[in-house]
Amino acid sequence: MSKKYVDIETLKYILYDVHKLENLLSRERFQEHDLESLDLFIDSVKEFSDRELHPYFKEMDETPAYYKDGTVLVHKQVQKVMHQSGEMGIIAACFNYEDGGLQIPFTVLQAAMYIMDAANNNLPSYAGLTGGAAELIIEFGNKELNKIYVPNMLSGTWGGTMCLTEPQAGSSLSDIVTKATPTAAGFYKISGQKIFISGGDHQFAENIVHLVLARIEGAPKGTKGISLFIVPKNRPKEDETLEYNDVMTIADFQKMGQRGYCTTHLGFGDSDDCRGWLVGEEHKGLNQMFLMMNGARIAVGRGAAGIAMAAYRASLQYANERPQGRKLSADGKKNPTEKQSLIIEHPDVRRMLLLQKSIVEGSLSLVLLASKYHDILTTATSQEEKEKYNLLLEMIIPIVKTFPSEAGAEAVDNGLQVLGGYGFCTDFSLQQYYRDIRVSALYEGTTGIQSQDLLGRKVTLQNGKALELLSAEILKTIIAASTDQDLKAYGTILEDTLKLSQKVLNHLMPFAIKGNYERYLADANLFMEYMSIVVLGWLWLEMGVDAKHELSNTERKYSEIFYESKIHTMKFYFKYEVPKTNSLAASLMSDEVVTIKKDKEYIL
Amino acid sequence: MSKKYVDIETLKYILYDVHKLENLLSRERFQEHDLESLDLFIDSVKEFSDRELHPYFKEMDETPAYYKDGTVLVHKQVQKVMHQSGEMGIIAACFNYEDGGLQIPFTVLQAAMYIMDAANNNLPSYAGLTGGAAELIIEFGNKELNKIYVPNMLSGTWGGTMCLTEPQAGSSLSDIVTKATPTAAGFYKISGQKIFISGGDHQFAENIVHLVLARIEGAPKGTKGISLFIVPKNRPKEDETLEYNDVMTIADFQKMGQRGYCTTHLGFGDSDDCRGWLVGEEHKGLNQMFLMMNGARIAVGRGAAGIAMAAYRASLQYANERPQGRKLSADGKKNPTEKQSLIIEHPDVRRMLLLQKSIVEGSLSLVLLASKYHDILTTATSQEEKEKYNLLLEMIIPIVKTFPSEAGAEAVDNGLQVLGGYGFCTDFSLQQYYRDIRVSALYEGTTGIQSQDLLGRKVTLQNGKALELLSAEILKTIIAASTDQDLKAYGTILEDTLKLSQKVLNHLMPFAIKGNYERYLADANLFMEYMSIVVLGWLWLEMGVDAKHELSNTERKYSEIFYESKIHTMKFYFKYEVPKTNSLAASLMSDEVVTIKKDKEYIL
Repeated sequence: MSKKYVDIETLKYILYDVHKLENLLSRERFQEHDLESLDLFIDSVKEFSDRELHPYFKEMDETPAYYKDGTVLVHKQVQKVMHQSGEMGIIAACFNYEDGGLQIPFTVLQAAMYIMDAANNNLPSYAGLTGGAAELIIEFGNKELNKIYVPNMLSGTWGGTMCLTEPQAGSSLSDIVTKATPTAAGFYKISGQKIFISGGDHQFAENIVHLVLARIEGAPKGTKGISLFIVPKNRPKEDETLEYNDVMTIADFQKMGQRGYCTTHLGFGDSDDCRGWLVGEEHKGLNQMFLMMNGARIAVGRGAAGIAMAAYRASLQYANERPQGRKLSADGKKNPTEKQSLIIEHPDVRRMLLLQKSIVEGSLSLVLLASKYHDILTTATSQEEKEKYNLLLEMIIPIVKTFPSEAGAEAVDNGLQVLGGYGFCTDFSLQQYYRDIRVSALYEGTTGIQSQDLLGRKVTLQNGKALELLSAEILKTIIAASTDQDLKAYGTILEDTLKLSQKVLNHLMPFAIKGNYERYLADANLFMEYMSIVVLGWLWLEMGVDAKHELSNTERKYSEIFYESKIHTMKFYFKYEVPKTNSLAASLMSDEVVTIKKDKEYIL
Repeated sequence: MSKKYVDIETLKYILYDVHKLENLLSRERFQEHDLESLDLFIDSVKEFSDRELHPYFKEMDETPAYYKDGTVLVHKQVQKVMHQSGEMGIIAACFNYEDGGLQIPFTVLQAAMYIMDAANNNLPSYAGLTGGAAELIIEFGNKELNKIYVPNMLSGTWGGTMCLTEPQAGSSLSDIVTKATPTAAGFYKISGQKIFISGGDHQFAENIVHLVLARIEGAPKGTKGISLFIVPKNRPKEDETLEYNDVMTIADFQKMGQRGYCTTHLGFGDSDDCRGWLVGEEHKGLNQMFLMMNGARIAVGRGAAGIAMAAYRASLQYANERPQGRKLSADGKKNPTEKQSLIIEHPDVRRMLLLQKSIVEGSLSLVLLASKYHDILTTATSQEEKEKYNLLLEMIIPIVKTFPSEAGAEAVDNGLQVLGGYGFCTDFSLQQYYRDIRVSALYEGTTGIQSQDLLGRKVTLQNGKALELLSAEILKTIIAASTDQDLKAYGTILEDTLKLSQKVLNHLMPFAIKGNYERYLADANLFMEYMSIVVLGWLWLEMGVDAKHELSNTERKYSEIFYESKIHTMKFYFKYEVPKTNSLAASLMSDEVVTIKKDKEYIL
């Protein structure tokens, strides 16, 4: 298989030059790292992905994970990648040295895992989720729990999961009923069922450590009565041997895409012998879980961005190799005696490629921006800095989860279309990317939920402070652009778009103030789309400013055409995508109310 | 499986009330039919679809057609449905009595086959394409060919295909190289390869009649040197037995969706014994094939509209049954002690359902409108009528092919999203509809090709006459709406949108006039999107006008809520979709040129 699934040059450009990783490295936490060592880490992950992930991309789709006799059977590569992710320090990359970690910046880990996502999105999450589960134990568990579970997880020997969803509750976590009954011995008896558990069981994991949301008997109703438990599939005994912990794999979910990444239905305590250990305080489980959720949401956006990147590279390669049709001549006809054109020469194909490029590289910049905010927040040296970057991160989280998922799917759709009929055929990878990426808008809170979060919580945070901070960041780039004759106009457009968003909010806010939250939030999805375009327009303008600057340098890292292509893609985004904010604003400010249920049901 | 895959009430409403089928029946060709008999025909196709198509929908996806030892093995239901489509007169429905047909209006056949598409899109095209191939023979073949082939095709005993695409040419038909060598015996020797041949071979067809585009030796280059041939898999001998005609099935194409409908790669004349018979005149093959193409393009739009309908019904049913989450109260919080809501009560879910409803029912109206134009054209009694409806049909063809395919895929995408994580699971049908519908934007000319056709050929037809006629039809509805206080405003919006489209054309036309066709057509896809919204806005306004009128009647056919739901959906379309024309116009009129290749290649 082609190794061109990722544009490493652009990845490094965005990481080092646009988002200036170097600035992060001056922070105390990262003092033992330098650009060179981190670059080696990224290269090693690329080499690992070339060798152990990408070659199995198609095979894992064709031989999906499946349930058999109480366990789930996955592709053998799951074992290899888990173990090597442990050995290479991928799982432990960001943890403290004292917890067995490497204190690598989160931003660098995301850049590295993005390569893995692009190579074969079936595999990285086995390791990623294990890291997330370990992080919860490190953050909230006591030292004993840490000692028992964390080292085996960081080495990739044991897997880890997050168990939130239940059949009757879906995304509504206040309705979960999994029960935890305290015992005199200190542990809890757990009983209940969890569904959609990614990486929930497979034949290669010696053990799987489930982080389970459950309700302690007598706990308050709703989300304030939920606690967090470690519930291992096998419980470690004092002699370090393992004993079955009554965690049953009831079934799996067969999916349209990402078929090599298993999704399971688990039953806890069917024989009344399932033990769980409380992590952190009683009834604080949801808050604790949500501390991890930011990382999980960045990871979903990153995964989608990686898939879209791989799809773009595949369709670009096809467009550069496939001859078909001819250029129109001045009479509007084609001359059949002329040589065929490559399809990349047709404007409509170019439009589909540039749309992909703008979404794919913009998404990558967005993922690394959110990761940078995360790094600054976790290493903040002042309360002011901490507060600022907490708000910026909170603001960007629903967008970094959603934009790569939604627009990424659109990018892949265009990539498939570039191949014509072949795009629909299983001999080509585009249809697999098309199926795989579709889960991203569902994972870890659907687009609907993210949009409610953006408009309902994040925009109103501290009376709009988060949005104000984000706007200030955007304005900095607009000001930088304003000194350049070619870029100035784009800055002005972006500024207008930002102003119009304020007008939209001025229109909506009174509904919230009057307590009509249903109306306030009814078109949250459209607002999400609006703000995503603003943020992407900003990130492209930022890339344009940097590229323009580099072009005026005599010594530059990349070729002239490399920088020019970034400016060109920025122009594409401003011509074809940014104008959509106008129609979105019109819909958002319309007085027509059609999606709120009144007395009659019109949806037949 | 649920039989709710189609909303028959809405289908009949659009067919009988909105598009007023009755008016067609006064035409001489249809005089032996009345509304009752045609209604029975539709009901019988629904019953047939319930019994023989829909129950195999999932099974045919899970056991796809596949190539083995020189033939393609398809699901057994292909045989049953082909034969019964023959027996019930579905294949022959629209043909002349003298050709073994029933002279049923094309519009009624499309309505009936739409039900089949919604029931199981793997099956109807086996019959549909056979009918299309038979039509070519009837229209252009001599009596002898007609006698040999047509009766066996109309009975469903023999299949039929259209063979256009070749590996090296793709959509560029001027590059086809399949060769036809005249022989003294009158037939031609055929040699070459064709790909993407739908229904090209299977174990149940006693024979398959291929309609093949090929180049007679010495023919001019380009599309003007292409002729049309009948090339049967087995050639009928004088004694009516069959003899193998050297048509080889080389391979099949495994696809992401529509996996029960086989797609083949055929080789003609590998042993120099493949005979073909010229249909019509030499070198006129492409024009002849394209006469059929209008029907084929309506059929693709119809298929997509049917799939989107079935997906909408499935997601609506889920939304009406699934409890999850709660209504927001005045403090913006949810009360966990309150009963769970059904998800159809959440505004965002309602938005996704209404978006589907507006696309699905609007697409159906569009398909039946195009079919009506087709019927009026083929039964026109004056040259003036013929010319008018020819232009209207030509104008609407690229739109009826494209809108249901593109917006239909978006509708299914929203349907899948309504189900949350379950939408991605193979236990639910949404993911299958999602995969199946994706082929529609590729079949019979991609969206890119349709868009070039719309802006490049149709808009410029007779100096804009076709577009003028269509605008006049739209204005009639705007005038009808203007007399109603509630509908007037929507008419005004539509009129403004129409005016803006003229402004867009005024901006683009000078490029064509100056011979810069590449620039003129570069954003043809956006223009397609624009015009599609105009047409759909019109069709919804038309439905609104009719529904409003019926609501003022004391005797009405359907319930009050039925009509109200149409008006409600119209309002939805005007709030959420129609405003998109503004941003499309901005992109279309932008002076920024980024998709036309200049000296350097910026797409890296």
